[in-house]
Amino acid sequence: MHDPTLVLYTDSSPNGFKITIALEEMGLPYRLVHVNIDRGDHHHADFLALNPAGRIPVLVDQSANIVLFESAAILLYLAQLSGQLLEQAPQARWEAITWLMYHSASMGPLLGQRVHFDCFETQPDPSAQQRYRNLTEHAFGILDQRLAGRSWLAADTYSIADIASFAWLHIAALVGFDFSGHAHLSRWFRQVEQRPAVQRGIRLPAPATGP
Amino acid sequence: MHDPTLVLYTDSSPNGFKITIALEEMGLPYRLVHVNIDRGDHHHADFLALNPAGRIPVLVDQSANIVLFESAAILLYLAQLSGQLLEQAPQARWEAITWLMYHSASMGPLLGQRVHFDCFETQPDPSAQQRYRNLTEHAFGILDQRLAGRSWLAADTYSIADIASFAWLHIAALVGFDFSGHAHLSRWFRQVEQRPAVQRGIRLPAPATGP
Repeated sequence: MHDPTLVLYTDSSPNGFKITIALEEMGLPYRLVHVNIDRGDHHHADFLALNPAGRIPVLVDQSANIVLFESAAILLYLAQLSGQLLEQAPQARWEAITWLMYHSASMGPLLGQRVHFDCFETQPDPSAQQRYRNLTEHAFGILDQRLAGRSWLAADTYSIADIASFAWLHIAALVGFDFSGHAHLSRWFRQVEQRPAVQRGIRLPAPATGP
Repeated sequence: MHDPTLVLYTDSSPNGFKITIALEEMGLPYRLVHVNIDRGDHHHADFLALNPAGRIPVLVDQSANIVLFESAAILLYLAQLSGQLLEQAPQARWEAITWLMYHSASMGPLLGQRVHFDCFETQPDPSAQQRYRNLTEHAFGILDQRLAGRSWLAADTYSIADIASFAWLHIAALVGFDFSGHAHLSRWFRQVEQRPAVQRGIRLPAPATGP
């Protein structure tokens, strides 16, 4: 048996789970390298040579000599490689890319700031906490409105846009950010959550344990 | 003369300038609709029907019946439409997409938070200010290191990755975020800034005036 050509450097985190879920959904063979952030593995020179920003996930496609970081770039690459989870028809395709980018640039980074101020800031900063609660609540509302009367975020097809958004919300739910008041978003969340590949993905390299 | 098929809804802002610069570089005909944020145009129902998140830029391709929001999605679309500013060869292409995503997900959102705390917060929050100064300073360092001995962010070709990063740094410089200590980043910034299409793009719909 050949060594898989895809190597994923990751840890149990919102951005990491996006890629383990996508790889499990697509059925692509890959080798997983656990970059243990708690232990500081991301500061090692070997890892910084792959991603100078020192963040997971990183995907290496050894057969094409391609190194990718940033989860949205990796999701787009895997969709092209597998021909899965991103429609070819232009309207459907660009709708999915638009919602992938909404997550990646406008929602995920704000959830990250909320996690910092709600879970990791040693000196509570109530006004910053409130700012990021408001901004992420607004984003929950945007997704909820989008999912009203619609099964998936884009083009009525489960796509990398759903995977990216779900992976972050999986962590959001775990640390206690409550979006249960958003009925459409909650229904979509449970629908994604019950997929077997998603259940495998959120356990790689290990289930997240919260802050 | 036909009405252009591309319609750009935008205002003078970091994310808006990404698209006016790209359109000017590519020489694509387009119609510009000024969404005046100060006047609250982004809250109008007509605009929210295009982007429920209520943010510029939005691009409509009338001939393909495609509506896009999120600047990174629009840049990818325009690159495909024009065949410009994103290499076709896989290694070069994915390098550019990776750095486009680094800007879009990991750098731009943090610059946005720094602008908020440094320029718009009525009650100064020194610890949040320091947090976003540190995080954006780290991002400046990543780009500076990347640009050492290299003309452009990816694949030795000026690309949509450079345009996205430049447009935000143009605003960062305007509001007084100092990255002049990063010699490679500063050299690259001046090199992008002097391009005629960039000079046109940063004046559409009007030059930014700072906070």
